[in-house]
Amino acid sequence: MHFASDNSGPVHPEVLTALAEANQDYQMAYGADTLMNEVRDQIRGIFEAPGAAVYLVATGTAANSLALATLSKPWETVFCSPVAHIHEDECNAPEFYTGAKLTLVPGGDKMTPEALTKSIEGEETRGVHGPQRGPVSITQVTERGSVYSLAELQALCGVAKSFGLPVHLDGARFTNALVALNCSPAEMTWKAGVDAVSFGGTKNGLMGVEAVIFFDESKAWEFELRRKRGAHLFSKHRYLSAQMAAYLKDDLWLKSAHKANANCARLADGLRAVGAEFLHEPQANMVFASFPRGQHKRLHEAGAVYHLWGDTLAGEDESEMLACRLVCDWSIGTEQIDQFLSLL
Amino acid sequence: MHFASDNSGPVHPEVLTALAEANQDYQMAYGADTLMNEVRDQIRGIFEAPGAAVYLVATGTAANSLALATLSKPWETVFCSPVAHIHEDECNAPEFYTGAKLTLVPGGDKMTPEALTKSIEGEETRGVHGPQRGPVSITQVTERGSVYSLAELQALCGVAKSFGLPVHLDGARFTNALVALNCSPAEMTWKAGVDAVSFGGTKNGLMGVEAVIFFDESKAWEFELRRKRGAHLFSKHRYLSAQMAAYLKDDLWLKSAHKANANCARLADGLRAVGAEFLHEPQANMVFASFPRGQHKRLHEAGAVYHLWGDTLAGEDESEMLACRLVCDWSIGTEQIDQFLSLL
Amino acid sequence: MHFASDNSGPVHPEVLTALAEANQDYQMAYGADTLMNEVRDQIRGIFEAPGAAVYLVATGTAANSLALATLSKPWETVFCSPVAHIHEDECNAPEFYTGAKLTLVPGGDKMTPEALTKSIEGEETRGVHGPQRGPVSITQVTERGSVYSLAELQALCGVAKSFGLPVHLDGARFTNALVALNCSPAEMTWKAGVDAVSFGGTKNGLMGVEAVIFFDESKAWEFELRRKRGAHLFSKHRYLSAQMAAYLKDDLWLKSAHKANANCARLADGLRAVGAEFLHEPQANMVFASFPRGQHKRLHEAGAVYHLWGDTLAGEDESEMLACRLVCDWSIGTEQIDQFLSLL
Amino acid sequence: MHFASDNSGPVHPEVLTALAEANQDYQMAYGADTLMNEVRDQIRGIFEAPGAAVYLVATGTAANSLALATLSKPWETVFCSPVAHIHEDECNAPEFYTGAKLTLVPGGDKMTPEALTKSIEGEETRGVHGPQRGPVSITQVTERGSVYSLAELQALCGVAKSFGLPVHLDGARFTNALVALNCSPAEMTWKAGVDAVSFGGTKNGLMGVEAVIFFDESKAWEFELRRKRGAHLFSKHRYLSAQMAAYLKDDLWLKSAHKANANCARLADGLRAVGAEFLHEPQANMVFASFPRGQHKRLHEAGAVYHLWGDTLAGEDESEMLACRLVCDWSIGTEQIDQFLSLL
Repeated sequence: MHFASDNSGPVHPEVLTALAEANQDYQMAYGADTLMNEVRDQIRGIFEAPGAAVYLVATGTAANSLALATLSKPWETVFCSPVAHIHEDECNAPEFYTGAKLTLVPGGDKMTPEALTKSIEGEETRGVHGPQRGPVSITQVTERGSVYSLAELQALCGVAKSFGLPVHLDGARFTNALVALNCSPAEMTWKAGVDAVSFGGTKNGLMGVEAVIFFDESKAWEFELRRKRGAHLFSKHRYLSAQMAAYLKDDLWLKSAHKANANCARLADGLRAVGAEFLHEPQANMVFASFPRGQHKRLHEAGAVYHLWGDTLAGEDESEMLACRLVCDWSIGTEQIDQFLSLL
Repeated sequence: MHFASDNSGPVHPEVLTALAEANQDYQMAYGADTLMNEVRDQIRGIFEAPGAAVYLVATGTAANSLALATLSKPWETVFCSPVAHIHEDECNAPEFYTGAKLTLVPGGDKMTPEALTKSIEGEETRGVHGPQRGPVSITQVTERGSVYSLAELQALCGVAKSFGLPVHLDGARFTNALVALNCSPAEMTWKAGVDAVSFGGTKNGLMGVEAVIFFDESKAWEFELRRKRGAHLFSKHRYLSAQMAAYLKDDLWLKSAHKANANCARLADGLRAVGAEFLHEPQANMVFASFPRGQHKRLHEAGAVYHLWGDTLAGEDESEMLACRLVCDWSIGTEQIDQFLSLL
Repeated sequence: MHFASDNSGPVHPEVLTALAEANQDYQMAYGADTLMNEVRDQIRGIFEAPGAAVYLVATGTAANSLALATLSKPWETVFCSPVAHIHEDECNAPEFYTGAKLTLVPGGDKMTPEALTKSIEGEETRGVHGPQRGPVSITQVTERGSVYSLAELQALCGVAKSFGLPVHLDGARFTNALVALNCSPAEMTWKAGVDAVSFGGTKNGLMGVEAVIFFDESKAWEFELRRKRGAHLFSKHRYLSAQMAAYLKDDLWLKSAHKANANCARLADGLRAVGAEFLHEPQANMVFASFPRGQHKRLHEAGAVYHLWGDTLAGEDESEMLACRLVCDWSIGTEQIDQFLSLL
Repeated sequence: MHFASDNSGPVHPEVLTALAEANQDYQMAYGADTLMNEVRDQIRGIFEAPGAAVYLVATGTAANSLALATLSKPWETVFCSPVAHIHEDECNAPEFYTGAKLTLVPGGDKMTPEALTKSIEGEETRGVHGPQRGPVSITQVTERGSVYSLAELQALCGVAKSFGLPVHLDGARFTNALVALNCSPAEMTWKAGVDAVSFGGTKNGLMGVEAVIFFDESKAWEFELRRKRGAHLFSKHRYLSAQMAAYLKDDLWLKSAHKANANCARLADGLRAVGAEFLHEPQANMVFASFPRGQHKRLHEAGAVYHLWGDTLAGEDESEMLACRLVCDWSIGTEQIDQFLSLL
């Protein structure tokens, strides 16, 4: 019963198999491995983007920071949600790589077109004195487990485009959003107006691989130099390629996200049934719910692992509602869900 | 017959086994995995440094850049060899992370105490105008396959200490040097005066793991923040830990380096026997040798893979001496060496 | 009738005289001029801080950015008001120099201890993932013409101290605040808990000089190196020294600020008398007021120069209230005020 | 008898007059002053470059760093002489602003086309691993008092162009070189192949003003943002404009440099007559000469101020040759030269 994070579970066994298969013979280093050619083609095919520039890095923060640096200038701002990972959880890495300032679009986890418009209008009214408008970064799935609809994505990208600004999609949980929307990768990205994607694999069963995809190929060489200068170019790159190849093979990525989302829905249904309250309506593989301390205590005693959300277990009042975050990754099974629910 | 790089070969099978073993159950993310505790203890034991701060990153450039950033200030210089990896092969990553300038100590791949002294004396004679003196970075094994003796290391560290400067050891091939010197890790580092080490694993059979070790524990928290800000903190960190644990278990690191060095010596002996000339006396797992174009052609036709060194295969003159670099990693076997030599 | 900015007026004639007097003979360059010794002593005396480190730079943005860089680390946040000059009007210079992120304390131009506490508590709850808590930057006079009372300053500094954080005071209009509070420089700075001050001269009659003062002398050498590395060390430094010496001589700084504040009060009284509304209660040398478009038009036709504040003069409705900012510098005379008021 | 630096002397009285004249009435801040329009036109006229982008900053280091940052990328190298001011005397400011690495072209103070070619060829042979080739920075007058001929400049720029690299001219002593060559500003810059110039005024009689000129206007807006972000945009900008306007008026810049060079030649002739040896042949306003300690002692006792060059006055041997640097600025008169020479 481990719901602490989709970073805590094991990697999918097929990934280990792929690593073993890749562990033959000699390969050119630094991304010139033959597997990378396959991965590039696979991703271009999946995204219906034959000219896309495709790169692999090992952390989501690297994917985000390097993508944003390639889309921005040091005197610009990056527009994002106040709870965006790039703002709250990357220890100034985006600022380090971009030199830019993050401008927090007021509101919740999801940016609205109105709030985004107002934020953008608020910048660059001071000529050379204020920072200039730069890229918009959208997190899909959001940090609170919500999923932007295609219409919402299109609207946000439309706002960005109306100001001539590029759009980055932080897709650490890209596939969880994709299966929630039941749409194509192209629809969720370039067809909606997205220019660059952090296409996450780590939270969905890989060991540590994220692809960065630019639909505008002209960014390719600059990205390669930024990746190397950031110390994110792997020498034995084939082991990144192998993970991503396994991820995309036989729909492993989709199946894993389907499973995680389905189990999360099962968990949410069960919680709803016992009267839990949702801080955010769960749409992908995360539930933010409140239920009584007494139930939390029972769960913890039974070995359930998850994070309380701003609350603390210690306390006398058994009926006090405590918020928590529950994350399902690909490895969670229905039996764990049911065991968890049975304790409530 | 692949001698292009110690980044080209497969990882040791025991590393894959360790990854599979680590792939059980749930683990705290971001370095809080239980395996990391073991690794930290192992490294502290091996280095006879019970208080050392120990961290893992995935690339050698990250290890070097983050270690140097922690040891320096943006207005300082880092003293290194003109052929140091941090200068030639990291696309300004050290400058990006440190803000400092690299000062190239004149000479060959090995710095001499005299040249280092002169370089250090040359800096900081201009008060606030010039950059200030910062850390000395020593590459062991050097980029040309040489190994500093303990006396040489002590002398260089002594120079640094006499100016109050910290010392970094770029040990991408740390273990190859260690077995060449037949000394202890402590002797090759803190006992000689080294303050921080990039302790490489990738070139010696791992997939992508380097430890950064500070003998002064007070650098620990700063390094952790720098690592995160550089986007080099792995979420599924257990897979870095597992590699390093396997590396240190049952002397795998030492055995692999022994094998690589021994095969390199066999290769060098064979080359010497057929009249090849050495650009640098091979001391670890790299040979820089010159022999006639005709022999190079034969080797290439037979499928041998390696880099010419400033020369080009194309040309009529079969007897012209062409320089090349030959690298042996752990996976090279004597049969490959002998096949290679038989073609000469 | 020029009320656009305290950057628009002439410099005080005594400053020109001082420049001419300093323009004799030869002087050591780069801050080693004898005048700088006098300035340092003057400032130490005025601030009752015999050990303070005192430096001169030519722009307020340089003073702020260099002071904050000296007080912070690249993985930290700087806490400031959402309308702080360092956030809105310095084109990411603070981020460039510090590497840090600015955290905007919710509220108006004045930070409250409660809001500051909440902001600080909100950071650094995520260990290595989020940025760490760094300095608090207070703007005195605020960008909206308000002045923190000594009690308010003490309370804010008290909050910072309770978290172990240093405090920076952006005193671009330091003297206007000082005379408004009728207190001593020491009371408004280190006695209240301020660690470093940008002590502005430019907006109060100088050509372009700001002092940066650290009450903790140990910051001195780092600041000198940062100033040079930022290209802010003047070769012919004596001309900065001469300006600051003239500023401090015979209370010119105090007299100029007194005059500016008094004229601003006269302006505010006149505006109040004709029914203007104040966006912020004027406390120093700036008025933010609303009055009917018809009056604005009359003023503009008569040659008055000032900035509307988010509104636009174009429009039919003569009675619509339009907001504006009116700034008095040392050079504004009562006759200009009265002429302006007579047009309302 | 002050020959320590062209930063030590007074500013030209006409500059003070111009400041006083500019000190009337109100002016738009931040470079929108009417005087700046005049200055821009003057410089465009003088350089025969009607479309040039022209900006003013207050220090030479700012001019160089900002110009180079605008011409380069953080993953590139800047090619310069090992004794270039940007390398030796700017405390990593160029690295701070550009993010790039400085590559020192082997040789003396003057780069040769051959050495430059070899340096450029030496970079970017390692694909993404090494830094990429960036701008060439030429110092004219060099730091050793030499002047590149037009043919030499053209040859260096030709090398840069043949690799597609931009050229920056560090003209801290631009006018001293110009009058030495007796050529036009256009000939010494864009006609020779220079893309951007730091056009110095401070060392030739101004208080602290350097123009940065881009012959490619498309760099203008980026430079403006970089200048502001670097905290180098002056609010009371008119006082920079006024200095530069005075400099260019009635050939003050040319007359001042003529005088400095002529006096330097007089000094060199006198030194030659008494048997001094020249480290570098003096061509502009600096002499690097060696003569016996006894003479140095006599000069020092008589109050002459100048820097020994790597030597020290202390010592017994009166006949030992000690090197020194002697700089003439616009304010040095023939009587000072003759007094100095009479002491030898």
